[in-house]
Amino acid sequence: MVKIDNSPARGTRDLLPTAVAVRDHVLSTITEVYGRYGYQRIETPALERIERLSGGQGGENEKMIFQVLRRGLPERIEADTELAELVDMGLRYDLTVPLARFYGQHRAELPTPFRSFQFGPVWRAERPQKGRYRQFYQCDIDMVGEPGMLAEAELIEATTQALNRVGLTGTTVRISDRRFLSALASEAGVPAEAQDGFFITLDKLDKVGWDGVAAELDKRGFGPDVVSAARDRIEALGEVPGDKLVATLSDVLPSLPQAVLDDLATTAGCLSDIGTQHGVTWEFDPTLVRGMGYYTGHIFEVAAPGAAGSVAGGGRYDNLIGRSLGTDVPACGFSIGFERIVDLLSEPPARDRLALLYDTDVPTSTVLATARELRTGGRAVAPVGRSGKFAAQLKRLEAGGYRAFVHLRADGDGSLEERPLRGDD
Amino acid sequence: MVKIDNSPARGTRDLLPTAVAVRDHVLSTITEVYGRYGYQRIETPALERIERLSGGQGGENEKMIFQVLRRGLPERIEADTELAELVDMGLRYDLTVPLARFYGQHRAELPTPFRSFQFGPVWRAERPQKGRYRQFYQCDIDMVGEPGMLAEAELIEATTQALNRVGLTGTTVRISDRRFLSALASEAGVPAEAQDGFFITLDKLDKVGWDGVAAELDKRGFGPDVVSAARDRIEALGEVPGDKLVATLSDVLPSLPQAVLDDLATTAGCLSDIGTQHGVTWEFDPTLVRGMGYYTGHIFEVAAPGAAGSVAGGGRYDNLIGRSLGTDVPACGFSIGFERIVDLLSEPPARDRLALLYDTDVPTSTVLATARELRTGGRAVAPVGRSGKFAAQLKRLEAGGYRAFVHLRADGDGSLEERPLRGDD
Repeated sequence: MVKIDNSPARGTRDLLPTAVAVRDHVLSTITEVYGRYGYQRIETPALERIERLSGGQGGENEKMIFQVLRRGLPERIEADTELAELVDMGLRYDLTVPLARFYGQHRAELPTPFRSFQFGPVWRAERPQKGRYRQFYQCDIDMVGEPGMLAEAELIEATTQALNRVGLTGTTVRISDRRFLSALASEAGVPAEAQDGFFITLDKLDKVGWDGVAAELDKRGFGPDVVSAARDRIEALGEVPGDKLVATLSDVLPSLPQAVLDDLATTAGCLSDIGTQHGVTWEFDPTLVRGMGYYTGHIFEVAAPGAAGSVAGGGRYDNLIGRSLGTDVPACGFSIGFERIVDLLSEPPARDRLALLYDTDVPTSTVLATARELRTGGRAVAPVGRSGKFAAQLKRLEAGGYRAFVHLRADGDGSLEERPLRGDD
Repeated sequence: MVKIDNSPARGTRDLLPTAVAVRDHVLSTITEVYGRYGYQRIETPALERIERLSGGQGGENEKMIFQVLRRGLPERIEADTELAELVDMGLRYDLTVPLARFYGQHRAELPTPFRSFQFGPVWRAERPQKGRYRQFYQCDIDMVGEPGMLAEAELIEATTQALNRVGLTGTTVRISDRRFLSALASEAGVPAEAQDGFFITLDKLDKVGWDGVAAELDKRGFGPDVVSAARDRIEALGEVPGDKLVATLSDVLPSLPQAVLDDLATTAGCLSDIGTQHGVTWEFDPTLVRGMGYYTGHIFEVAAPGAAGSVAGGGRYDNLIGRSLGTDVPACGFSIGFERIVDLLSEPPARDRLALLYDTDVPTSTVLATARELRTGGRAVAPVGRSGKFAAQLKRLEAGGYRAFVHLRADGDGSLEERPLRGDD
């Protein structure tokens, strides 16, 4: 007999019932919370035109697009051909590029501001490695069309509350602002066109320390004066209490525009309220960068006790959505680390499933009628035919996720005694 | 300014909030019903290895696979390259091929019988046309490992109950059996190897009538004697009452094996019960064929009043799952026509969303605190900043799906009167 390979495609995975149950629980909890804040779920197709995916908004992710072959091509390529000519679509690598297209297409039918909730798979052709998959789910929450700080504050409140509800309590929100980072870089002597590279290096500070940052900045052509100017300012901003933040910032970075100070003051006030309401702490983190180049204002990340890295992150991106419309549209969003959160919550909310074990000489219609009766009141009941040794079958039932059983016999008296399947019941 | 095309890729579509709300309602209703019958949701990746998708189990669908390019190919493809060499994966075109692979891979971790519930997108490179999309959702319910008629009866009961719950009441279940069709074809003089073609033609009877069937069978090389032999038997079986079915069948088709008669007798008994319990009628339909070649026993379809075609269909396929294991595994399943059902239910279950209209001079923290207070008790509340003419903004709110609003003013007395947004309230 030929050995058949039933494993999923390389870098992808199957989800078994217990894994799906955890995921469904997390999804329904956060959907419910965002729903109460007025966020509405939308959906875009998995496939997008390749030009849209390669338009430069996806940064490094654009190198990892799964490309789809055009239909109707000949089976054999006759002449030298550019690979790009064979491709017309790709699988989306995030939910932000599709949101920009969606908003551009349907703006007239959507309220202002538009509160969007997205949940769905994305695909990236990454080198497969433990815990990282080529298909994974993203969960994005965005407010499109709101220029004010209400967007930032509401998104942080809703997101920390959603995390609370799935069991991630005691979260910390770290805040910064791209305009702050620009002012910092400028004052340190980094010209505007070199700032993206400067930020990429600064983002590694918590991993490589100041010596590592200095070494990398040196390679980028920035001398020790730039490093010390940046370091002085960043260290002056470390551990500043929230109510002193604005005064300290205006002291340390005199070139910071008043609008940024005003926005941070608003956010600080709202975050203090949110902290009181939802048990969330917050801090200004002058070294927070976030990877994507499209952020224009506040950026933020949420950390949870016991979780390495952040469990959610986002920021304001006022120039991205508008590129699909030829006009500026303010936007602010959060991406929840759905896969990371699910990994933190290993215990599924067990559904109380009852096995109706029936002797195989019981008529099928009797089995079904008994199951129907046991289901009254909403209980989950599944008939299972008797087979093999009794004790061994009970073990299999328990392993299959059943928590109790009843035994239906052809010669029984009709009474069905329910018995637990676990020794500890 | 360059005009930007924001439409989704050809043959795909975006789903707006009201559409998603209907879909979520249908999905959660049927998930709940199947859950009570013990069905557990699993998930497989969208991408499968191309060999698996092209293995012959997908019939005509295998011609419509979206093929994915290998990664790391050179930018220029040399002449004389087979297209197939460039491809290693494809997007799944159904949920049955992945289920067979899934069961083959994870059998040891799954209960017997395994009750599987799948919901997810599939992709087919069909010519785009009205109401038919290249990405659409399938909803499959399968019982794997159960050889007895309990599978058929339970699946029919659960499925008609799920349809009831989403509002499709008064359904009719049409039943036939592949073994009956084989006996019919044999008695009519069609040899075993030609029967698949014979069934494909017979399947068109309700569209083209007996004259059309006779003409097509003539092209396939079957004379008028075959047609009349088949027609006589089929007409003798039309409109037979359920309790006379087995006797009539054994009369009309003496070659029909006793096992088939026994199975149909069991099913008939169970369906009578189910009809009484759930308001479902059933009939034996000797012209029912169903497209896929992998069915081995009972086949069935569910019709709903007001819906053209069937809203669900399936059957027993005892040889398909086993091909992934090198052994036979009995299986029976239903595919619910999710997209068709959603199209039948146009009215979304409106969520009562309240707009908190705030004057823009109200402090952001006050807006958020007011929204928080209004949300007490589970209400969905979304702040919206005042802009433009008041009446016009109310119209926009109504169009945006809000049903009522409160107006928060900086100089207000703190009392928030709720006002409806619809004239008919």
